[in-house]
Amino acid sequence: MFGEIIAIGDELTSGRILNTTSHFAASHLFAAGHEVVAMITIGDNATLISETLRRALEQVDFLIVTGGLGATSDDLTNEAVAEALDRPTIFHPEILQRIKTHCRDWAAQFGAGMEKLAWLPEGAHELKSDANMAGYFLVQDGKPIFFLPGVPHEMEELLLEAVITRLAVWEGSEPRTVRQKVFKVVGLPEAAINGHLRHLEGKSGKVAIGYYPVPPEVHVSLTVTGGSVAEADQLFYEFDQEIAAALIPYHYGDDGDLLEEAVGRLLRGQKMTLALAESCTGGMIAHKITAVVGSSDYFVGGVVAYSNSLKERLLGVERGTLVRHGAVSEETARAMAEGVRTATGADLAVSVTGIAGPGGGSDEKPVGTVWFALATPDGTQAFGLLFGGVRWQVQAKACSFGLDLVRRSLLKVSLLP
Amino acid sequence: MFGEIIAIGDELTSGRILNTTSHFAASHLFAAGHEVVAMITIGDNATLISETLRRALEQVDFLIVTGGLGATSDDLTNEAVAEALDRPTIFHPEILQRIKTHCRDWAAQFGAGMEKLAWLPEGAHELKSDANMAGYFLVQDGKPIFFLPGVPHEMEELLLEAVITRLAVWEGSEPRTVRQKVFKVVGLPEAAINGHLRHLEGKSGKVAIGYYPVPPEVHVSLTVTGGSVAEADQLFYEFDQEIAAALIPYHYGDDGDLLEEAVGRLLRGQKMTLALAESCTGGMIAHKITAVVGSSDYFVGGVVAYSNSLKERLLGVERGTLVRHGAVSEETARAMAEGVRTATGADLAVSVTGIAGPGGGSDEKPVGTVWFALATPDGTQAFGLLFGGVRWQVQAKACSFGLDLVRRSLLKVSLLP
Repeated sequence: MFGEIIAIGDELTSGRILNTTSHFAASHLFAAGHEVVAMITIGDNATLISETLRRALEQVDFLIVTGGLGATSDDLTNEAVAEALDRPTIFHPEILQRIKTHCRDWAAQFGAGMEKLAWLPEGAHELKSDANMAGYFLVQDGKPIFFLPGVPHEMEELLLEAVITRLAVWEGSEPRTVRQKVFKVVGLPEAAINGHLRHLEGKSGKVAIGYYPVPPEVHVSLTVTGGSVAEADQLFYEFDQEIAAALIPYHYGDDGDLLEEAVGRLLRGQKMTLALAESCTGGMIAHKITAVVGSSDYFVGGVVAYSNSLKERLLGVERGTLVRHGAVSEETARAMAEGVRTATGADLAVSVTGIAGPGGGSDEKPVGTVWFALATPDGTQAFGLLFGGVRWQVQAKACSFGLDLVRRSLLKVSLLP
Repeated sequence: MFGEIIAIGDELTSGRILNTTSHFAASHLFAAGHEVVAMITIGDNATLISETLRRALEQVDFLIVTGGLGATSDDLTNEAVAEALDRPTIFHPEILQRIKTHCRDWAAQFGAGMEKLAWLPEGAHELKSDANMAGYFLVQDGKPIFFLPGVPHEMEELLLEAVITRLAVWEGSEPRTVRQKVFKVVGLPEAAINGHLRHLEGKSGKVAIGYYPVPPEVHVSLTVTGGSVAEADQLFYEFDQEIAAALIPYHYGDDGDLLEEAVGRLLRGQKMTLALAESCTGGMIAHKITAVVGSSDYFVGGVVAYSNSLKERLLGVERGTLVRHGAVSEETARAMAEGVRTATGADLAVSVTGIAGPGGGSDEKPVGTVWFALATPDGTQAFGLLFGGVRWQVQAKACSFGLDLVRRSLLKVSLLP
């Protein structure tokens, strides 16, 4: 089915809040075989909401509307929708009762504003009988309109459990055949990837290959659209194989995979443990690794050695090394990696020491200079790199490179891309 | 002036990429006194682009269009725009020359596809003479349309340096008087904040107060719109004072401020240094602190003690403590904070040890149980909390609480909100 996503809220059009809910909805609708024709964001303005709803209803088969359903005094969507679709607002005592029970159960305060959560446009149906959050749907001109809260985790739960499930069985719903995957690529720039894959473009009108730089990575999408299921599956299989083969060893995972998850899978598979000694990345690599469920199986921890004294005290870097070569040097990087490996007993250890900026640079070692070392049972290797960009970009690139160093080491390919 | 932001790209409507550029543009246009009526996202579809441009030109004074200007084979915006506005595409040899020079200077490869960067719709003017990126503007029916690349940092540079500057002097541009700020609040839920501020609502038709939960924080916006500059300034001053007074000590900063920056300012002002011993937050607090420019002045570093053996080896937590009370306990939290304070010589030390989940919980210590300790020259205090949510939410809440512990300690207010 063809749909539109409409997000309502002055906080979005004035740029106070980044709209992540429309993106979440688009991604899951696409995966379910629907096509999002447009994503519209407008402010809390009844006339504009009315116009937008009416125009969208003429063009697509379903609408998803998010935001403005809460209890605070700036939440106006329900009233505006009642006006736009010419439906009176109806009081739902059972909803009020549920809110009161919920507040009692959670020892929360029932505020005066909460009563408005029980006033909905005529014809509104609840999305989930056990949902303790705003949200409903109604049918206009035979087309479903889903109203969801703007709070991301509430909207996401309802979208997955009460919207996509309903769309799948909606009368007249005939999702297109769609096969899609995203190849996550690290260490190879967009233009080079495009060169590797150009021979595949135009080979089939049903296949599209897209390139999306998400620095410091590039994501490559393969999309097969239309045709029979068998034909789509065959095309998808062929292109999947060809793209994957062309991107070895830069292709670390697919779709929702993260580089730190790929690294974690390799460590777990090879029963290896990892420790970190981070200076300029300041804990970013450890944070990414430990965001992964189960990372305690392979990650022992590490030291954020932000000051020179910690490099000495906790990592055993000799003062002479720091004085002679500086904190950002091959020698210090080696000593940090070996020091944290010894202190923790991990199989592998990575160190990162560099100048993220804006201060601290010199002619000899400009901002963006970063030294890495990888200590393994077979010895230690070190690499100096110069990254462009401002502080957070240097940190993000160093984090990505550090993770990729572990991945490449475990894959036994060249450590430098 | 009234404007629309149009983002073009299948990667956006299919949910592969989160659209951050429209948000960036909206935020800066609002601050410059313009009103964004709508933010539209559509796919790479010439008919839809054409309809959207024509409809938008009827409704607003200016348009910003992002995306699809690159050199790879799926970038189609220029051709579609030429068709939509009925303008032929013109070859610009000087642009081609600049690209070639740029490639040579940077030892980059000039690819076959890059030539299309030099083909632009008739009437296109360059945005910045020295910009080494795609982007131009043209005037249709007296209204400027700005075409910007979809890559965030390129788009952001051009928006700030070549779009907002042009709009400020555009004929007929009369920006409204707007005063706005956002109060960043930590440790107080939305409903409670709403209660603290409800008496201010409705006091002036020109003043709006908005509440935006950005877990684990809440952001409160104050917006004064319309009227004379003097009137707006006066209203803004009055409400600013009242809101700030009502939110002490939960209000840690304004607008773009981050909690870790507020903590950094306090540490710097009081000439105190900080160390961390993180277990369940896995380096997240250190990462946030070191993302702030100049954090090496007050942050010495810390230990990511993800395994019990690191808690012993690097932090000096006694095995008996770990065995008797467990890694997630008041006693271990205290020993971690005191251990890292001793090992690093920092003035203050915070420790975090908890069960982020999904595994590791028990009846006695369910997922979400987190112990914190703050070690200072005056002694050590510990706090046990139970956070709701899944792994990343527990980690984010623990990170925020840990940072706020430092802030409250330096402010000399109650350590628990």
